[in-house]
Amino acid sequence: MTRTLLPDLTPDVVATAARRVMARCDELARVTAAPGQIERVYLSPEHARVNRLAAEWMREVGMTTRQDAAGNQIGRLAPSTGSGAVGSTGSGAAARSSSARGARDETPDVPTLMLGSHLDTVPDAGRFDGIVGVLMALEVVRLLRVPGPDGRGSVSPLPFAIEVVAFSDEEGTRFGKALLGSSAVAGTWDDDWWQLTDADGTTLRQAYLEFGLDPGRVGEAARRSDELVGYLEAHIEQGPQLDRRGESLAVVSSIASARRFQLVVEGEARHAGGTPYDMRRDALLGASEAALAVERICAAEHHIIGTVGQLEAFPGAVNIVPGEAHFSLDLRGEFDESRDRVWSAISRDLDGIMGRRGLRWRAREVHNAPAVMCAPLLQDVVREGIRGALPDIPDDPATLFSPAGHDGMSIGAITDVGMLFLRNPDGISHHPDEAVSSADVALGIRALAESVLHLSAEPR
Amino acid sequence: MTRTLLPDLTPDVVATAARRVMARCDELARVTAAPGQIERVYLSPEHARVNRLAAEWMREVGMTTRQDAAGNQIGRLAPSTGSGAVGSTGSGAAARSSSARGARDETPDVPTLMLGSHLDTVPDAGRFDGIVGVLMALEVVRLLRVPGPDGRGSVSPLPFAIEVVAFSDEEGTRFGKALLGSSAVAGTWDDDWWQLTDADGTTLRQAYLEFGLDPGRVGEAARRSDELVGYLEAHIEQGPQLDRRGESLAVVSSIASARRFQLVVEGEARHAGGTPYDMRRDALLGASEAALAVERICAAEHHIIGTVGQLEAFPGAVNIVPGEAHFSLDLRGEFDESRDRVWSAISRDLDGIMGRRGLRWRAREVHNAPAVMCAPLLQDVVREGIRGALPDIPDDPATLFSPAGHDGMSIGAITDVGMLFLRNPDGISHHPDEAVSSADVALGIRALAESVLHLSAEPR
Repeated sequence: MTRTLLPDLTPDVVATAARRVMARCDELARVTAAPGQIERVYLSPEHARVNRLAAEWMREVGMTTRQDAAGNQIGRLAPSTGSGAVGSTGSGAAARSSSARGARDETPDVPTLMLGSHLDTVPDAGRFDGIVGVLMALEVVRLLRVPGPDGRGSVSPLPFAIEVVAFSDEEGTRFGKALLGSSAVAGTWDDDWWQLTDADGTTLRQAYLEFGLDPGRVGEAARRSDELVGYLEAHIEQGPQLDRRGESLAVVSSIASARRFQLVVEGEARHAGGTPYDMRRDALLGASEAALAVERICAAEHHIIGTVGQLEAFPGAVNIVPGEAHFSLDLRGEFDESRDRVWSAISRDLDGIMGRRGLRWRAREVHNAPAVMCAPLLQDVVREGIRGALPDIPDDPATLFSPAGHDGMSIGAITDVGMLFLRNPDGISHHPDEAVSSADVALGIRALAESVLHLSAEPR
Repeated sequence: MTRTLLPDLTPDVVATAARRVMARCDELARVTAAPGQIERVYLSPEHARVNRLAAEWMREVGMTTRQDAAGNQIGRLAPSTGSGAVGSTGSGAAARSSSARGARDETPDVPTLMLGSHLDTVPDAGRFDGIVGVLMALEVVRLLRVPGPDGRGSVSPLPFAIEVVAFSDEEGTRFGKALLGSSAVAGTWDDDWWQLTDADGTTLRQAYLEFGLDPGRVGEAARRSDELVGYLEAHIEQGPQLDRRGESLAVVSSIASARRFQLVVEGEARHAGGTPYDMRRDALLGASEAALAVERICAAEHHIIGTVGQLEAFPGAVNIVPGEAHFSLDLRGEFDESRDRVWSAISRDLDGIMGRRGLRWRAREVHNAPAVMCAPLLQDVVREGIRGALPDIPDDPATLFSPAGHDGMSIGAITDVGMLFLRNPDGISHHPDEAVSSADVALGIRALAESVLHLSAEPR
């Protein structure tokens, strides 16, 4: 049965909200470290600027705001104390003001639903990946909020607080380690990460200090399971499945299991002219064969994808046989077991390639995230939300596995995760041509709002 | 018949000269832009420092010195006016002092024999490539020079002046264009080169100005054919042939024909997780296949060698399918025709690879040097020089083709070129382990000195 929990919401209101989201995506796209491109990395001046913009927009919809100890920007809409029913106007005690810790309620037993996504980008990025999810969540707050007690401010009409979290680092562009922002929130921060360095040799610890954050307090960003209702995220699909089906929205069943490696191939640098082929130990040719082996092995598997996104030869001169090559491997699968089996197969292949060429190789694992299953309850809630937004579709909406990683991979450690995918024309993402239609954003806003209401109506 | 033209030269004197060369190679190795490595590029502060050192050493053996309009450091030992015979002590008019153009004689009809090599390096270089040839030439001057008229200064005992040229850019490390220093001397400078840029975006023109050189005067570095007797260069082999034969010295028959290309492969940058293999146009995989094709095609040929020394993927993020890849190709052969035929074969292969993968590719030729044959007369002279240094070897010394490029490739445009190769253990060059033995340097100094004397004795 399809229930529309927002029967009075007119298409005009939702279209206006979607247009605002699109305009703000354009506005955030102009906050970039790379002129003519979009690039916004963790703990950069651009990170600080988009946090300020997001905070402003959070306050505009009645949220109290804080930047947490890991640079995540958070807005909070507290419930009206004592309220419980959907649609309650939150009469009762006055909404609490921000506590000493910022926007969090002092009452420890007020549960919180987190909505969100991230504002950081890959290099030469598109303008929607992550960003559109944060901005849609703000529109959901705008649609659902009710005036506070005595008509002052806004509160959540639901039996829980709503927070919108703009995660600070999902892509891992700067330090090569993804999900730093959401890992801090999940309390899974690893102190080894402080020594990670960016391309300029700046450590993560130094970058924290330069950004004005105290590395010693990163633990304060961690949230407790018992204060959370769940985490819901809207995101563009970053793949072509919805576009191929001609559908707007999908329920996400799980987020890929992902491992990332930095590989080094060692041979011997020699003069390009004088060294016959039988004396060469060319590290770049070994790495080239390796990249092709990754493609061959993964393409033969179901729901496994491997990508070599970085490759560089050293010393990197036109007239020197490369003595060393570095490359990255990003390996994803729907299930941990099949992904690990493929990594073993790739490793065996690399042993063969490098052995034949007189090369040595080694791999350093820089990221390992098990597959995160979306909670069945939240899958149901998102499915109901989509049906509420698209009452006329005859079949259940699509359910897709996400080969791309998302903040929910971290957040799954502390609370239930649900995700809503938006159609991404031609599946182009991590690229300036990345797109989403305003119409699909409108449907997504309604679906996400309906999902939140369905969740509040679920027996708990 | 073997003639030793230096019968009074004792092994001690030559061994001392070789030890001085080895010590100076160590001294120059400390002039580097990269701590812990050797890297000395065109128009850098290190270039200026080694020119000053070389000038000091040139003056020490009685040469007048100048830095030419392209930053080449030149020392000149003028002949005693009117002298003609080998062994002449140069009685006659006083040796001329430096002219307004520096160390060149004002008398236009005094012919000049150039000896030399280069002082610039590749990144993370060895300490002998080029350098040892310049320092050996200085020892040859030390051995051959005679006191000037009235016992003042030193002059060449030969019917020609001797110049030692320390070329400023042979490797092309900084601007990706090799042989800049010797091209200026050959008068084959191309004004298009002024727009070449280094890794920091500095143009060649700016670098000239920053070094204190006037781009408008580069033509003054050019030498006229009619003032030159020839060019002789000693160089480490940069290959394993002499080491495999167990011989110290070789006559060079020709210098490789070389072409260099910068290739660009264009595909489409996409998200590494969400893009199925059937939608990928992965530029890095295309470039990887291309690098392996170069190896396969060249390895099947005789005396053709192709090297991909640089390769980079863009945007170069761990989680993005590369949309673009850049790589270099260095292609060398003993003959221009076979080299060009192989380039055609590689091009056809690249068409096939890129076509299958939905990629575009293009190549920009950044260097094209035809094979330079060493002059038969100078090959004979070097052969006689080696026999003079090694009177007991039963057979003719080895004659080798040089797959590596040398300054003689440029200088061949204006005068005869001859080269002497020194054994290079295991053929390791362009690498910190690059080596040459002091014993072989001693033999090489004697052979080069004998070669010069044989040349002066040849009927002209």
